[in-house]
Amino acid sequence: MNIDNAGSVDMAESHDTTARLLITCPDKPGIVSAVSTFFFNHGANITALDQYSTDPEGGTFFTRLEFQTLHLDIGKKVLMKAFSETVAKRYDMDWRISYSADVKKVAVLVSKHDHGLLELLWRWSRGELPAEISMVISNHETLKEAVLGFGLPFHYVPVNRDTKVGAEQQILTLIEGQADLVVLARYMQVLSAQFVSQFENRIINIHHSFLPSFVGADPYQQAHDKGVKIIGATSHYVTSELDMGPIIDQSILRVSHRDTVQSLREKGKDIERNVLARAVRWHLEDRIIVHGNKTIVFD
Amino acid sequence: MNIDNAGSVDMAESHDTTARLLITCPDKPGIVSAVSTFFFNHGANITALDQYSTDPEGGTFFTRLEFQTLHLDIGKKVLMKAFSETVAKRYDMDWRISYSADVKKVAVLVSKHDHGLLELLWRWSRGELPAEISMVISNHETLKEAVLGFGLPFHYVPVNRDTKVGAEQQILTLIEGQADLVVLARYMQVLSAQFVSQFENRIINIHHSFLPSFVGADPYQQAHDKGVKIIGATSHYVTSELDMGPIIDQSILRVSHRDTVQSLREKGKDIERNVLARAVRWHLEDRIIVHGNKTIVFD
Amino acid sequence: MNIDNAGSVDMAESHDTTARLLITCPDKPGIVSAVSTFFFNHGANITALDQYSTDPEGGTFFTRLEFQTLHLDIGKKVLMKAFSETVAKRYDMDWRISYSADVKKVAVLVSKHDHGLLELLWRWSRGELPAEISMVISNHETLKEAVLGFGLPFHYVPVNRDTKVGAEQQILTLIEGQADLVVLARYMQVLSAQFVSQFENRIINIHHSFLPSFVGADPYQQAHDKGVKIIGATSHYVTSELDMGPIIDQSILRVSHRDTVQSLREKGKDIERNVLARAVRWHLEDRIIVHGNKTIVFD
Amino acid sequence: MNIDNAGSVDMAESHDTTARLLITCPDKPGIVSAVSTFFFNHGANITALDQYSTDPEGGTFFTRLEFQTLHLDIGKKVLMKAFSETVAKRYDMDWRISYSADVKKVAVLVSKHDHGLLELLWRWSRGELPAEISMVISNHETLKEAVLGFGLPFHYVPVNRDTKVGAEQQILTLIEGQADLVVLARYMQVLSAQFVSQFENRIINIHHSFLPSFVGADPYQQAHDKGVKIIGATSHYVTSELDMGPIIDQSILRVSHRDTVQSLREKGKDIERNVLARAVRWHLEDRIIVHGNKTIVFD
Repeated sequence: MNIDNAGSVDMAESHDTTARLLITCPDKPGIVSAVSTFFFNHGANITALDQYSTDPEGGTFFTRLEFQTLHLDIGKKVLMKAFSETVAKRYDMDWRISYSADVKKVAVLVSKHDHGLLELLWRWSRGELPAEISMVISNHETLKEAVLGFGLPFHYVPVNRDTKVGAEQQILTLIEGQADLVVLARYMQVLSAQFVSQFENRIINIHHSFLPSFVGADPYQQAHDKGVKIIGATSHYVTSELDMGPIIDQSILRVSHRDTVQSLREKGKDIERNVLARAVRWHLEDRIIVHGNKTIVFD
Repeated sequence: MNIDNAGSVDMAESHDTTARLLITCPDKPGIVSAVSTFFFNHGANITALDQYSTDPEGGTFFTRLEFQTLHLDIGKKVLMKAFSETVAKRYDMDWRISYSADVKKVAVLVSKHDHGLLELLWRWSRGELPAEISMVISNHETLKEAVLGFGLPFHYVPVNRDTKVGAEQQILTLIEGQADLVVLARYMQVLSAQFVSQFENRIINIHHSFLPSFVGADPYQQAHDKGVKIIGATSHYVTSELDMGPIIDQSILRVSHRDTVQSLREKGKDIERNVLARAVRWHLEDRIIVHGNKTIVFD
Repeated sequence: MNIDNAGSVDMAESHDTTARLLITCPDKPGIVSAVSTFFFNHGANITALDQYSTDPEGGTFFTRLEFQTLHLDIGKKVLMKAFSETVAKRYDMDWRISYSADVKKVAVLVSKHDHGLLELLWRWSRGELPAEISMVISNHETLKEAVLGFGLPFHYVPVNRDTKVGAEQQILTLIEGQADLVVLARYMQVLSAQFVSQFENRIINIHHSFLPSFVGADPYQQAHDKGVKIIGATSHYVTSELDMGPIIDQSILRVSHRDTVQSLREKGKDIERNVLARAVRWHLEDRIIVHGNKTIVFD
Repeated sequence: MNIDNAGSVDMAESHDTTARLLITCPDKPGIVSAVSTFFFNHGANITALDQYSTDPEGGTFFTRLEFQTLHLDIGKKVLMKAFSETVAKRYDMDWRISYSADVKKVAVLVSKHDHGLLELLWRWSRGELPAEISMVISNHETLKEAVLGFGLPFHYVPVNRDTKVGAEQQILTLIEGQADLVVLARYMQVLSAQFVSQFENRIINIHHSFLPSFVGADPYQQAHDKGVKIIGATSHYVTSELDMGPIIDQSILRVSHRDTVQSLREKGKDIERNVLARAVRWHLEDRIIVHGNKTIVFD
């Protein structure tokens, strides 16, 4: 399958004048006023604003702004410096600004299951994911043809017990400078703490259960053994502790006694791919702030 | 059932220092800055802020702010006058401020079905609805005992073809000054345009279908005849056109060929009461702005 | 609240000519033929039939039949003896027949939360639960008035560490012969293994989490700490192992970072009461077969 | 994309010994007994049985049996003749038997939107749809490459006002003997009554609204104009009346005031493709009986 418009996202986005600001800081009065006035004074129209506070008295404050850069009176760098000095310092902010025109690079790791990967590639090829997918890496060759059909590079990096360290190093080399985000679309290898630490809050995994139920191997078997009436899927950021990172999104499906482990696996694919695609899109649109072991999602 | 804590909502709320501001105005740059700076300067901490624009270029802008009045440097009336003169006029705002301490009065109209009414009274008695329910009015005596059990006034106003005008007048007299909101919890009488005009965007109805499907009488029979696989319920503001007012909320339920009209009626009750209770709560918490024939819901 | 038609269910049901047969047996060819032919030959029209097999080759077979007794050519006792001898023995069946006219007696145990209890009483008073609710027992007096309002006996049986054994004995005495089913509608005491063994597969509990996540105390706090995006409720039969009995039904609700432990508790009530009411109704309609640690639900 | 295992379904299914029987007949006592005894006597083990009656007294009875043919004592033709003579005639049955080994042929018609088509091809290539997809026909060339990538024939049959009759004739010629089922996966042309009559209850369409709301053109625009809070998708059999044929399945998605017509179109794709894929699978597995303008779905 040769999708001619595969690169259309980058092109379209490069004329995009939207920027997003994410802020985490101690809550105190005046933050919204200070931030919105700063942007207004520099000609940036705020087109979306979300905020959340864990507690107005002494809690943590989070906000997400979308603003238009077309009429800015200063350039990016000057804007960021000015914001840092006149607003961010005063309120002790942890912040970042992203420009839609700077399309994020994404590397996808996958093993043999195609559903999560194909869902991402489809949506991307239709322009629904504002990303540049730089490559797909797999420890199996099963999905090579499918990936090449989308006009994307495919790298085969086999892994076994003895080659694990070297394989990870090979992956790191491949994605260096090519991955603002790493997506594990059913990649059946546990990444080392060292790998994870290089992509803090920038690796998204899909786990095929309703976490925290059924951590670890073969969650559909576990769900079947337990006799649950609902199965789930969970997308989360990867931390060094297996399946325990901050949850981004979850979805569920009713099942019954009639379901076999196999039918759970098949039905589960539908929620896995949705919940993964949503998490990836939210990340790409700068809608997620990680706070401790939780996420704030401004969707 | 004599619920001693029935009045607890009012008591609790009277110490509540939360206020809410709803604004509708033409979108242009600087609104958020102007509004948030105004409140910051007067010592009101903004604890929630939502905004929406139909179009940043020439569209309509809507916002909802929650702020704390405890440290305000001026009284309510002065605050409102100041806001009107320094902010609202400049941006041509349609706006209103509500104080949680000013608990809204609610009159409920009902016929024979108890589920919508009881759901509201239960939630209210548990403190989940920030309202003073001033009375229940019915064209039947069926639910009298249930209402009295909650310690609430019950008024029986029978209606037939000949007494319709007089009955409406009687209801208007009963609720005069006693109803900031009128809830039709399966009240099986069509209100006149004249009645409706006195409570514009302040009458909430529950219709037992997924509108705009199955307007009018016996929607479950209509749904059964059509063979739909999902039924719904819709809460909406009442306008002079039957079942066509701005939709506030909808919910649905899967059904199958096995369902009879009767089983649809029974199952439907569960979604009707949820969708009604949610709409009433949103209205009481000033989360809804009506815009033309649609609602903006900041939930 | 004095509901005059509270006893209407029993009356209506006493004319009911429906009976239900539940069978568990080793799967082999001919079972459906043998069973359906038996009932046809005795004049009983089969109006519903569900079946399920864990494996057609050497698995376990389950079936539920609803049949009409009006034209039976033999009485109940003779029918049961005949079925036992001509069909059940041949296929090594574990079976039971229930007649709708023999309305099941239900005792409800509750602590302070009213939502599960009121949902049951409300549905029962509308005729939606085919049961005779024989009494409500609580370790608090909080809900006494509410229960009496439905015209039902309320027994106050306080429990503390020292009186636990005696309290359980007191409850057993109260419900002796008065409870075909015991419902724990948020009863915050763990029942002893000895109590549970007397009501095997006849005690239904509602747990306010999506089991097996968040077993034990304060699941909403646990869910909040974990940062899940969906909360759940689970109804299950009680076994001697806390919150680990066969799951009957589950339901869920999307939540977000904005939810507090308190808001989870409030929202959770809506799914708890639905999931409890559904499990109780299914049990009363003989729709559940327990098989090991799982349930077969013919809904 | 060259999927080597594309033909695997047929191969696997050719060893399948499952058969399915669908029956519609006047309800009267003894049907289940007669049918199950017939199959038992001929050595066919019944592995699934569903039944439904519109009314046990004088209604219509529907049943679906799955049985295993491995130990049948007679061949297909003899079995069908015997069933017809000894059972079907007696109960005035409308019936058909399908063998899983006789894989159904499917032709897909599509215009420019790829999501419905790709969902079907993807599931089919994974072995989730027990069909032989004989061809894809489109009035545009947009999806040609995608279809060829799956190793399937693609036929371009352009349509305009003047060529409509000829185009339909061309399609009929292409699919003659090649389509037990025709799927309209967003085919934006209305088929003539003459075409439809040749495939009665064998053309499945996906309509992108919650029917009967928003019949006809651009339902997402209609939904946006109305301000609904939930959008839907409906799969149905095609009849000569536009969008009015028997509904097979429906699904929905919550939306809000923030959604534009464009975002409804994008989000809607997710439910359209699910609801279409499910309907097609149910048809292929002989789970649907059409009764008047409704469907009985034994899922």
